[in-house]
Amino acid sequence: MKPEHKDIMKARRRNIRLTVAYDGTNYHGFQRQNPPIVAVQNVLEEQLAKVFGDTIELAAAGRTDAGVHARGQVVNFFTDGTIPTDKVPRAINSLLPPDIVVVEAMETDREFSARHSAVSKIYEYRILQGDIPDPFERNYSWNIRKTLDIKAMEQCLELLKGEHDFSAFRAAGGAPMSPVRTIYEASLQAEQQGRIISLRFHANGFLYHMVRNIVGTLGNVGLGWKSVEDFKGIMASLDRQKAGATAPAQGLYLDKVFYEEGIK
Amino acid sequence: MKPEHKDIMKARRRNIRLTVAYDGTNYHGFQRQNPPIVAVQNVLEEQLAKVFGDTIELAAAGRTDAGVHARGQVVNFFTDGTIPTDKVPRAINSLLPPDIVVVEAMETDREFSARHSAVSKIYEYRILQGDIPDPFERNYSWNIRKTLDIKAMEQCLELLKGEHDFSAFRAAGGAPMSPVRTIYEASLQAEQQGRIISLRFHANGFLYHMVRNIVGTLGNVGLGWKSVEDFKGIMASLDRQKAGATAPAQGLYLDKVFYEEGIK
Repeated sequence: MKPEHKDIMKARRRNIRLTVAYDGTNYHGFQRQNPPIVAVQNVLEEQLAKVFGDTIELAAAGRTDAGVHARGQVVNFFTDGTIPTDKVPRAINSLLPPDIVVVEAMETDREFSARHSAVSKIYEYRILQGDIPDPFERNYSWNIRKTLDIKAMEQCLELLKGEHDFSAFRAAGGAPMSPVRTIYEASLQAEQQGRIISLRFHANGFLYHMVRNIVGTLGNVGLGWKSVEDFKGIMASLDRQKAGATAPAQGLYLDKVFYEEGIK
Repeated sequence: MKPEHKDIMKARRRNIRLTVAYDGTNYHGFQRQNPPIVAVQNVLEEQLAKVFGDTIELAAAGRTDAGVHARGQVVNFFTDGTIPTDKVPRAINSLLPPDIVVVEAMETDREFSARHSAVSKIYEYRILQGDIPDPFERNYSWNIRKTLDIKAMEQCLELLKGEHDFSAFRAAGGAPMSPVRTIYEASLQAEQQGRIISLRFHANGFLYHMVRNIVGTLGNVGLGWKSVEDFKGIMASLDRQKAGATAPAQGLYLDKVFYEEGIK
Protein backbone atom coordinates (compact mmCIF):
# COMPACT_ATOMS: atom_id res chain seq x y z
CA MET A 1 0.00 0.00 0.00
CA LYS A 2 1.32 3.39 -0.98
CA PRO A 3 2.01 5.61 2.05
CA GLU A 4 -0.01 8.81 2.25
CA HIS A 5 1.70 12.07 1.41
CA LYS A 6 1.30 13.47 4.92
CA ASP A 7 2.84 10.30 6.40
CA ILE A 8 5.85 10.73 4.13
CA MET A 9 6.20 14.29 5.47
CA LYS A 10 5.79 13.08 9.06
CA ALA A 11 8.50 10.46 8.54
CA ARG A 12 11.01 13.27 8.19
CA ARG A 13 13.25 13.73 11.19
CA ARG A 14 12.72 17.33 12.26
CA ASN A 15 9.68 19.51 12.97
CA ILE A 16 10.69 23.16 12.58
CA ARG A 17 8.64 26.01 13.96
CA LEU A 18 9.10 29.57 12.67
CA THR A 19 7.68 32.89 13.79
CA VAL A 20 7.19 35.08 10.73
CA ALA A 21 6.49 38.80 10.30
CA TYR A 22 5.34 40.18 6.98
CA ASP A 23 3.99 43.27 5.34
CA GLY A 24 0.98 41.86 3.49
CA THR A 25 0.63 44.81 1.09
CA ASN A 26 2.15 43.08 -1.91
CA TYR A 27 0.80 39.57 -1.36
CA HIS A 28 -2.44 37.77 -2.10
CA GLY A 29 -2.70 36.65 1.51
CA PHE A 30 -0.74 33.99 3.35
CA GLN A 31 -2.13 30.81 1.83
CA ARG A 32 -0.34 29.30 -1.17
CA GLN A 33 -1.75 30.33 -4.56
CA ASN A 34 -1.19 29.08 -8.06
CA PRO A 35 1.37 31.20 -9.91
CA PRO A 36 1.47 33.89 -11.15
CA ILE A 37 -0.47 34.88 -8.00
CA VAL A 38 2.01 35.20 -5.16
CA ALA A 39 1.14 34.50 -1.54
CA VAL A 40 3.47 34.68 1.44
CA GLN A 41 3.45 30.89 1.68
CA ASN A 42 4.73 30.50 -1.90
CA VAL A 43 7.71 32.72 -1.18
CA LEU A 44 8.49 31.13 2.19
CA GLU A 45 8.29 27.56 0.90
CA GLU A 46 10.44 28.32 -2.12
CA GLN A 47 13.23 29.94 -0.10
CA LEU A 48 13.04 27.48 2.82
CA ALA A 49 13.52 24.68 0.27
CA LYS A 50 16.92 26.20 -0.56
CA VAL A 51 17.94 26.54 3.08
CA PHE A 52 16.86 23.01 4.04
CA GLY A 53 17.60 21.26 0.73
CA ASP A 54 14.18 19.68 0.90
CA THR A 55 10.67 20.26 -0.43
CA ILE A 56 8.80 22.28 2.18
CA GLU A 57 5.10 22.23 3.02
CA LEU A 58 4.07 24.72 5.66
CA ALA A 59 1.17 24.63 8.06
CA ALA A 60 0.26 28.08 9.46
CA ALA A 61 -1.58 29.30 12.53
CA GLY A 62 -3.69 31.81 10.60
CA ARG A 63 -4.61 32.32 6.97
CA THR A 64 -4.34 36.05 6.60
CA ASP A 65 -6.14 37.63 3.64
CA ALA A 66 -4.63 39.80 0.91
CA GLY A 67 -3.25 43.02 2.39
CA VAL A 68 -3.39 41.74 5.99
CA HIS A 69 -0.12 41.87 7.93
CA ALA A 70 1.55 39.68 10.54
CA ARG A 71 4.02 40.32 13.31
CA GLY A 72 3.78 36.87 14.85
CA GLN A 73 2.46 34.37 12.32
CA VAL A 74 3.58 30.85 13.30
CA VAL A 75 4.30 28.06 10.82
CA ASN A 76 5.76 24.58 11.05
CA PHE A 77 7.08 21.97 8.64
CA PHE A 78 8.82 18.60 8.64
CA THR A 79 12.25 18.27 7.07
CA ASP A 80 15.34 16.12 6.84
CA GLY A 81 17.47 19.22 6.24
CA THR A 82 20.47 19.48 8.54
CA ILE A 83 21.04 23.24 8.99
CA PRO A 84 21.32 24.04 12.74
CA THR A 85 18.20 25.80 13.98
CA ASP A 86 20.09 28.84 15.28
CA LYS A 87 21.45 29.48 11.77
CA VAL A 88 18.02 29.46 10.17
CA PRO A 89 16.84 33.08 10.64
CA ARG A 90 19.97 34.63 9.13
CA ALA A 91 20.10 32.09 6.29
CA ILE A 92 16.45 32.43 5.29
CA ASN A 93 16.28 36.22 5.78
CA SER A 94 19.19 36.68 3.39
CA LEU A 95 17.06 34.98 0.71
CA LEU A 96 13.61 36.37 1.50
CA PRO A 97 12.36 39.68 0.10
CA PRO A 98 12.53 42.42 2.76
CA ASP A 99 8.76 42.41 3.33
CA ILE A 100 8.90 38.87 4.80
CA VAL A 101 11.11 38.19 7.84
CA VAL A 102 11.64 35.06 9.92
CA VAL A 103 11.84 36.42 13.46
CA GLU A 104 12.53 33.16 15.29
CA ALA A 105 13.18 29.49 14.54
CA MET A 106 13.09 26.48 16.83
CA GLU A 107 13.00 22.71 16.56
CA THR A 108 9.81 21.52 18.15
CA ASP A 109 7.94 18.42 19.33
CA ARG A 110 6.77 16.06 16.58
CA GLU A 111 3.19 16.61 17.75
CA PHE A 112 3.33 20.36 17.35
CA SER A 113 1.13 21.83 14.64
CA ALA A 114 1.20 25.60 14.11
CA ARG A 115 -2.43 25.37 13.10
CA HIS A 116 -4.00 22.73 15.31
CA SER A 117 -1.99 23.27 18.52
CA ALA A 118 -2.86 26.99 18.72
CA VAL A 119 -4.99 27.75 21.77
CA SER A 120 -5.51 31.48 21.19
CA LYS A 121 -4.46 34.41 19.02
CA ILE A 122 -4.18 38.17 19.22
CA TYR A 123 -5.18 40.32 16.27
CA GLU A 124 -4.62 44.07 16.18
CA TYR A 125 -6.59 46.51 14.05
CA ARG A 126 -5.32 50.06 13.51
CA ILE A 127 -7.57 53.02 12.66
CA LEU A 128 -6.27 56.46 11.67
CA GLN A 129 -8.88 59.05 12.61
CA GLY A 130 -9.19 62.54 11.18
CA ASP A 131 -9.68 64.22 7.82
CA ILE A 132 -5.99 64.48 6.89
CA PRO A 133 -4.63 61.15 5.63
CA ASP A 134 -1.09 60.04 6.46
CA PRO A 135 1.10 58.84 3.57
CA PHE A 136 2.97 56.50 5.93
CA GLU A 137 -0.24 54.87 7.14
CA ARG A 138 -1.86 54.23 3.76
CA ASN A 139 -1.10 50.50 3.79
CA TYR A 140 -1.14 50.05 7.56
CA SER A 141 -4.41 51.43 8.91
CA TRP A 142 -8.01 52.31 8.02
CA ASN A 143 -8.41 56.07 7.69
CA ILE A 144 -11.81 57.16 9.05
CA ARG A 145 -12.10 60.83 8.11
CA LYS A 146 -13.85 61.95 11.32
CA THR A 147 -13.12 62.15 15.02
CA LEU A 148 -14.47 58.99 16.63
CA ASP A 149 -16.48 58.53 19.82
CA ILE A 150 -13.90 56.47 21.70
CA LYS A 151 -16.04 55.97 24.82
CA ALA A 152 -18.86 54.39 22.82
CA MET A 153 -16.38 52.11 21.03
CA GLU A 154 -14.92 51.02 24.38
CA GLN A 155 -18.39 50.15 25.64
CA CYS A 156 -18.88 47.90 22.63
CA LEU A 157 -15.54 46.21 23.29
CA GLU A 158 -16.80 45.33 26.79
CA LEU A 159 -19.84 43.65 25.23
CA LEU A 160 -17.62 41.50 23.02
CA LYS A 161 -15.71 39.95 25.91
CA GLY A 162 -16.58 36.43 26.93
CA GLU A 163 -18.13 33.45 25.13
CA HIS A 164 -20.61 34.44 22.44
CA ASP A 165 -22.11 33.26 19.19
CA PHE A 166 -20.41 35.66 16.74
CA SER A 167 -22.58 34.80 13.72
CA ALA A 168 -23.37 38.50 13.22
CA PHE A 169 -19.69 39.09 12.46
CA ARG A 170 -19.07 35.97 10.40
CA ALA A 171 -18.42 36.33 6.68
CA ALA A 172 -20.47 34.27 4.27
CA GLY A 173 -18.34 31.52 2.75
CA GLY A 174 -16.46 30.53 5.89
CA ALA A 175 -16.13 26.84 6.77
CA PRO A 176 -19.26 25.39 8.47
CA MET A 177 -17.89 25.36 12.02
CA SER A 178 -19.40 26.50 15.30
CA PRO A 179 -19.81 30.30 15.46
CA VAL A 180 -19.12 30.32 19.21
CA ARG A 181 -15.82 31.86 20.29
CA THR A 182 -14.45 33.29 23.52
CA ILE A 183 -12.88 36.75 23.46
CA TYR A 184 -10.54 37.03 26.45
CA GLU A 185 -9.55 40.61 25.85
CA ALA A 186 -10.84 43.40 23.61
CA SER A 187 -9.06 46.69 24.21
CA LEU A 188 -8.54 50.09 22.66
CA GLN A 189 -5.44 52.20 22.92
CA ALA A 190 -4.94 55.69 21.52
CA GLU A 191 -1.48 56.34 20.06
CA GLN A 192 0.30 59.32 18.46
CA GLN A 193 -1.75 61.94 20.35
CA GLY A 194 -4.95 60.08 19.58
CA ARG A 195 -4.50 59.99 15.79
CA ILE A 196 -4.13 56.21 15.79
CA ILE A 197 -6.66 53.95 17.50
CA SER A 198 -5.24 50.50 18.11
CA LEU A 199 -7.82 47.77 18.77
CA ARG A 200 -6.60 44.44 20.16
CA PHE A 201 -8.57 41.21 20.27
CA HIS A 202 -7.39 38.11 22.11
CA ALA A 203 -9.64 35.09 21.53
CA ASN A 204 -9.54 31.31 21.45
CA GLY A 205 -10.32 31.54 17.75
CA PHE A 206 -11.73 33.82 15.09
CA LEU A 207 -14.37 33.23 12.43
CA TYR A 208 -13.63 34.24 8.85
CA HIS A 209 -13.45 38.07 8.64
CA MET A 210 -14.61 38.28 12.27
CA VAL A 211 -12.20 41.03 13.35
CA ARG A 212 -12.78 43.12 10.24
CA ASN A 213 -16.56 42.76 10.58
CA ILE A 214 -16.43 43.73 14.25
CA VAL A 215 -14.23 46.73 13.45
CA GLY A 216 -16.48 47.83 10.57
CA THR A 217 -19.39 47.93 13.00
CA LEU A 218 -17.30 49.58 15.74
CA GLY A 219 -16.41 52.26 13.16
CA ASN A 220 -20.12 52.95 12.67
CA VAL A 221 -20.49 53.34 16.43
CA GLY A 222 -17.47 55.64 16.59
CA LEU A 223 -19.01 57.77 13.84
CA GLY A 224 -22.32 57.97 15.73
CA TRP A 225 -24.19 56.14 12.96
CA LYS A 226 -25.00 53.35 15.40
CA SER A 227 -25.40 53.37 19.19
CA VAL A 228 -23.93 50.99 21.76
CA GLU A 229 -27.45 49.56 22.10
CA ASP A 230 -27.53 48.98 18.35
CA PHE A 231 -24.19 47.15 18.62
CA LYS A 232 -25.63 44.95 21.37
CA GLY A 233 -28.66 44.23 19.22
CA ILE A 234 -26.50 43.36 16.20
CA MET A 235 -24.49 40.88 18.27
CA ALA A 236 -27.65 39.30 19.62
CA SER A 237 -29.33 39.14 16.18
CA LEU A 238 -26.69 36.63 14.92
CA ASP A 239 -27.45 38.23 11.55
CA ARG A 240 -24.52 39.30 9.37
CA GLN A 241 -26.85 41.59 7.37
CA LYS A 242 -27.32 43.81 10.43
CA ALA A 243 -23.63 44.50 11.05
CA GLY A 244 -21.50 47.15 9.35
CA ALA A 245 -19.31 46.71 6.29
CA THR A 246 -16.09 44.72 6.56
CA ALA A 247 -13.25 47.02 7.58
CA PRO A 248 -10.42 47.15 5.02
CA ALA A 249 -7.66 44.55 5.10
CA GLN A 250 -4.70 46.89 5.50
CA GLY A 251 -5.51 47.79 9.14
CA LEU A 252 -5.31 44.18 10.35
CA TYR A 253 -2.31 42.42 11.94
CA LEU A 254 -1.94 38.86 13.20
CA ASP A 255 0.04 39.83 16.28
CA LYS A 256 0.65 36.71 18.35
CA VAL A 257 -0.30 33.05 18.53
CA PHE A 258 -0.37 31.14 21.81
CA TYR A 259 0.20 27.40 22.30
CA GLU A 260 -0.38 25.02 25.19
CA GLU A 261 2.23 25.02 27.89
CA GLY A 262 4.62 22.17 27.27
CA ILE A 263 4.08 22.34 23.50
CA LYS A 264 6.87 24.54 22.27
CA MET B 1 10.54 94.02 -23.79
CA LYS B 2 9.16 90.58 -23.03
CA PRO B 3 8.46 90.10 -19.32
CA GLU B 4 10.47 87.40 -17.59
CA HIS B 5 8.74 84.14 -16.78
CA LYS B 6 9.13 84.59 -13.03
CA ASP B 7 7.58 88.06 -13.24
CA ILE B 8 4.56 86.62 -15.03
CA MET B 9 4.21 84.16 -12.17
CA LYS B 10 4.61 86.91 -9.58
CA ALA B 11 1.91 88.98 -11.29
CA ARG B 12 -0.60 86.35 -10.27
CA ARG B 13 -2.85 87.37 -7.40
CA ARG B 14 -2.32 84.73 -4.75
CA ASN B 15 0.70 83.16 -3.08
CA ILE B 16 -0.30 79.76 -1.69
CA ARG B 17 1.75 77.89 0.87
CA LEU B 18 1.30 74.15 1.42
CA THR B 19 2.71 71.76 3.99
CA VAL B 20 3.20 68.39 2.34
CA ALA B 21 3.90 64.91 3.73
CA TYR B 22 5.06 62.11 1.45
CA ASP B 23 6.42 58.62 1.48
CA GLY B 24 9.43 58.97 -0.82
CA THR B 25 9.78 55.25 -1.54
CA ASN B 26 8.26 55.34 -5.00
CA TYR B 27 9.61 58.70 -6.19
CA HIS B 28 12.85 59.95 -7.66
CA GLY B 29 13.10 62.63 -5.03
CA PHE B 30 11.15 65.85 -4.67
CA GLN B 31 12.53 67.93 -7.53
CA ARG B 32 10.75 67.84 -10.89
CA GLN B 33 12.17 65.32 -13.38
CA ASN B 34 11.61 64.76 -17.05
CA PRO B 35 9.04 62.01 -17.68
CA PRO B 36 8.94 59.05 -17.48
CA ILE B 37 10.87 59.67 -14.25
CA VAL B 38 8.39 60.73 -11.59
CA ALA B 39 9.26 63.07 -8.75
CA VAL B 40 6.94 64.33 -6.03
CA GLN B 41 6.97 67.79 -7.62
CA ASN B 42 5.68 66.43 -10.95
CA VAL B 43 2.71 64.81 -9.26
CA LEU B 44 1.91 67.81 -7.06
CA GLU B 45 2.10 70.35 -9.88
CA GLU B 46 -0.02 68.24 -12.18
CA GLN B 47 -2.82 67.77 -9.64
CA LEU B 48 -2.63 71.32 -8.25
CA ALA B 49 -3.11 72.58 -11.80
CA LYS B 50 -6.51 70.84 -11.84
CA VAL B 51 -7.54 72.25 -8.46
CA PHE B 52 -6.48 75.84 -9.30
CA GLY B 53 -7.21 75.79 -13.04
CA ASP B 54 -3.78 77.26 -13.65
CA THR B 55 -0.27 76.13 -14.51
CA ILE B 56 1.60 75.60 -11.27
CA GLU B 57 5.30 76.03 -10.55
CA LEU B 58 6.33 75.09 -7.05
CA ALA B 59 9.23 76.32 -4.97
CA ALA B 60 10.13 73.95 -2.12
CA ALA B 61 11.97 74.33 1.19
CA GLY B 62 14.08 71.21 0.68
CA ARG B 63 15.01 69.04 -2.29
CA THR B 64 14.74 65.58 -0.83
CA ASP B 65 16.54 62.77 -2.69
CA ALA B 66 15.04 59.58 -4.07
CA GLY B 67 13.66 57.43 -1.23
CA VAL B 68 13.79 60.27 1.32
CA HIS B 69 10.52 61.08 3.09
CA ALA B 70 8.86 64.25 4.35
CA ARG B 71 6.39 64.99 7.10
CA GLY B 72 6.61 68.76 6.82
CA GLN B 73 7.93 69.77 3.39
CA VAL B 74 6.80 73.33 2.60
CA VAL B 75 6.09 74.60 -0.91
CA ASN B 76 4.62 77.78 -2.35
CA PHE B 77 3.31 78.93 -5.73
CA PHE B 78 1.57 81.90 -7.32
CA THR B 79 -1.85 81.43 -8.85
CA ASP B 80 -4.96 83.24 -10.09
CA GLY B 81 -7.06 80.21 -9.14
CA THR B 82 -10.09 81.05 -7.01
CA ILE B 83 -10.64 77.97 -4.83
CA PRO B 84 -10.94 79.04 -1.15
CA THR B 85 -7.81 78.09 0.79
CA ASP B 86 -9.69 76.01 3.38
CA LYS B 87 -11.05 73.78 0.60
CA VAL B 88 -7.62 73.06 -0.84
CA PRO B 89 -6.45 70.09 1.31
CA ARG B 90 -9.57 68.00 0.71
CA ALA B 91 -9.69 68.89 -3.00
CA ILE B 92 -6.05 68.12 -3.71
CA ASN B 93 -5.88 65.03 -1.48
CA SER B 94 -8.79 63.49 -3.36
CA LEU B 95 -6.65 63.72 -6.54
CA LEU B 96 -3.20 62.87 -5.17
CA PRO B 97 -1.96 59.29 -4.86
CA PRO B 98 -2.12 58.15 -1.22
CA ASP B 99 1.64 58.42 -0.71
CA ILE B 100 1.51 62.23 -1.08
CA VAL B 101 -0.71 64.27 1.27
CA VAL B 102 -1.24 68.01 1.61
CA VAL B 103 -1.45 68.49 5.36
CA GLU B 104 -2.13 72.23 5.44
CA ALA B 105 -2.79 75.11 3.03
CA MET B 106 -2.70 78.85 3.63
CA GLU B 107 -2.62 82.04 1.61
CA THR B 108 0.57 83.84 2.44
CA ASP B 109 2.46 87.15 2.01
CA ARG B 110 3.60 87.89 -1.53
CA GLU B 111 7.18 87.99 -0.23
CA PHE B 112 7.05 84.48 1.20
CA SER B 113 9.28 81.90 -0.50
CA ALA B 114 9.19 78.34 0.83
CA ARG B 115 12.83 78.05 -0.18
CA HIS B 116 14.40 81.44 0.52
CA SER B 117 12.39 82.47 3.61
CA ALA B 118 13.24 79.31 5.52
CA VAL B 119 15.39 80.07 8.58
CA SER B 120 15.89 76.51 9.84
CA LYS B 121 14.85 72.90 9.32
CA ILE B 122 14.57 69.70 11.28
CA TYR B 123 15.57 66.40 9.70
CA GLU B 124 15.02 63.06 11.40
CA TYR B 125 16.97 59.90 10.68
CA ARG B 126 15.71 56.52 11.87
CA ILE B 127 17.95 53.52 12.53
CA LEU B 128 16.65 50.01 13.29
CA GLN B 129 19.27 48.18 15.35
CA GLY B 130 19.56 44.42 15.74
CA ASP B 131 20.06 41.34 13.61
CA ILE B 132 16.38 40.66 12.90
CA PRO B 133 15.04 43.02 10.20
CA ASP B 134 11.49 44.38 10.40
CA PRO B 135 9.32 44.07 7.29
CA PHE B 136 7.43 47.26 8.26
CA GLU B 137 10.65 49.26 8.53
CA ARG B 138 12.27 48.22 5.26
CA ASN B 139 11.49 51.53 3.53
CA TYR B 140 11.53 53.71 6.65
CA SER B 141 14.81 53.13 8.48
CA TRP B 142 18.40 51.92 8.12
CA ASN B 143 18.81 48.47 9.61
CA ILE B 144 22.19 48.15 11.33
CA ARG B 145 22.51 44.48 12.25
CA LYS B 146 24.23 45.00 15.60
CA THR B 147 23.50 46.58 18.95
CA LEU B 148 24.85 50.14 18.87
CA ASP B 149 26.85 52.05 21.47
CA ILE B 150 24.28 54.76 22.14
CA LYS B 151 26.42 56.67 24.66
CA ALA B 152 29.23 57.12 22.15
CA MET B 153 26.76 58.27 19.50
CA GLU B 154 25.29 60.82 21.92
CA GLN B 155 28.77 62.19 22.63
CA CYS B 156 29.27 62.75 18.90
CA LEU B 157 25.92 64.55 18.70
CA GLU B 158 27.19 66.98 21.35
CA LEU B 159 30.23 67.72 19.18
CA LEU B 160 28.01 68.57 16.23
CA LYS B 161 26.09 71.31 18.02
CA GLY B 162 26.97 74.92 17.26
CA GLU B 163 28.52 76.66 14.27
CA HIS B 164 31.01 74.51 12.36
CA ASP B 165 32.49 74.00 8.94
CA PHE B 166 30.81 70.74 7.92
CA SER B 167 32.97 70.06 4.87
CA ALA B 168 33.76 66.57 6.17
CA PHE B 169 30.09 65.67 5.78
CA ARG B 170 29.48 67.46 2.50
CA ALA B 171 28.82 65.38 -0.60
CA ALA B 172 30.83 66.04 -3.72
CA GLY B 173 28.68 67.73 -6.33
CA GLY B 174 26.80 70.10 -4.05
CA ALA B 175 26.48 73.75 -5.00
CA PRO B 176 29.62 75.84 -4.21
CA MET B 177 28.26 77.55 -1.12
CA SER B 178 29.78 78.12 2.31
CA PRO B 179 30.22 74.86 4.24
CA VAL B 180 29.51 76.60 7.56
CA ARG B 181 26.22 75.75 9.25
CA THR B 182 24.84 76.03 12.77
CA ILE B 183 23.27 72.96 14.36
CA TYR B 184 20.93 74.13 17.12
CA GLU B 185 19.94 70.69 18.29
CA ALA B 186 21.21 67.17 17.63
CA SER B 187 19.45 64.56 19.72
CA LEU B 188 18.94 60.84 19.95
CA GLN B 189 15.83 59.10 21.18
CA ALA B 190 15.33 55.36 21.59
CA GLU B 191 11.86 54.10 20.61
CA GLN B 192 10.10 50.73 20.61
CA GLN B 193 12.13 49.33 23.52
CA GLY B 194 15.34 50.57 21.95
CA ARG B 195 14.89 48.85 18.59
CA ILE B 196 14.52 52.19 16.80
CA ILE B 197 17.05 54.99 17.24
CA SER B 198 15.63 58.32 16.14
CA LEU B 199 18.21 61.03 15.44
CA ARG B 200 16.99 64.62 15.08
CA PHE B 201 18.97 67.52 13.65
CA HIS B 202 17.77 71.12 13.80
CA ALA B 203 20.02 73.51 11.86
CA ASN B 204 19.91 76.79 9.98
CA GLY B 205 20.72 74.84 6.85
CA PHE B 206 22.13 71.57 5.59
CA LEU B 207 24.77 70.82 2.97
CA TYR B 208 24.02 68.25 0.29
CA HIS B 209 23.85 64.78 1.94
CA MET B 210 25.00 66.31 5.22
CA VAL B 211 22.58 64.40 7.47
CA ARG B 212 23.18 61.08 5.72
CA ASN B 213 26.96 61.55 5.86
CA ILE B 214 26.82 62.45 9.56
CA VAL B 215 24.62 59.43 10.27
CA GLY B 216 26.87 57.09 8.27
CA THR B 217 29.78 58.16 10.45
CA LEU B 218 27.67 57.99 13.63
CA GLY B 219 26.80 54.42 12.64
CA ASN B 220 30.51 53.57 12.55
CA VAL B 221 30.88 55.02 16.04
CA GLY B 222 27.83 53.07 17.25
CA LEU B 223 29.38 49.88 15.86
CA GLY B 224 32.68 50.60 17.61
CA TRP B 225 34.58 50.90 14.31
CA LYS B 226 35.39 54.52 15.12
CA SER B 227 35.79 56.29 18.48
CA VAL B 228 34.31 59.60 19.62
CA GLU B 229 37.84 61.02 19.24
CA ASP B 230 37.92 59.76 15.66
CA PHE B 231 34.60 61.50 15.03
CA LYS B 232 36.00 64.73 16.41
CA GLY B 233 39.06 64.36 14.17
CA ILE B 234 36.89 63.70 11.12
CA MET B 235 34.86 66.86 11.74
CA ALA B 236 38.05 68.92 12.18
CA SER B 237 39.71 67.42 9.08
CA LEU B 238 37.09 69.02 6.79
CA ASP B 239 37.85 66.01 4.58
CA ARG B 240 34.90 64.04 3.17
CA GLN B 241 37.23 61.08 2.50
CA LYS B 242 37.71 60.58 6.24
CA ALA B 243 34.03 60.25 7.12
CA GLY B 244 31.89 57.11 6.87
CA ALA B 245 29.71 56.05 3.95
CA THR B 246 26.49 57.94 3.25
CA ALA B 247 23.64 56.38 5.23
CA PRO B 248 20.82 55.05 3.03
CA ALA B 249 18.06 57.39 1.87
CA GLN B 250 15.10 55.52 3.33
CA GLY B 251 15.90 56.44 6.96
CA LEU B 252 15.71 60.20 6.32
CA TYR B 253 12.72 62.50 6.89
CA LEU B 254 12.34 66.24 6.31
CA ASP B 255 10.36 66.82 9.48
CA LYS B 256 9.74 70.55 9.83
CA VAL B 257 10.69 73.88 8.24
CA PHE B 258 10.76 77.11 10.23
CA TYR B 259 10.20 80.63 8.89
CA GLU B 260 10.78 84.07 10.31
CA GLU B 261 8.16 85.35 12.71
CA GLY B 262 5.76 87.53 10.81
CA ILE B 263 6.30 85.64 7.57
CA LYS B 264 3.51 83.13 7.51
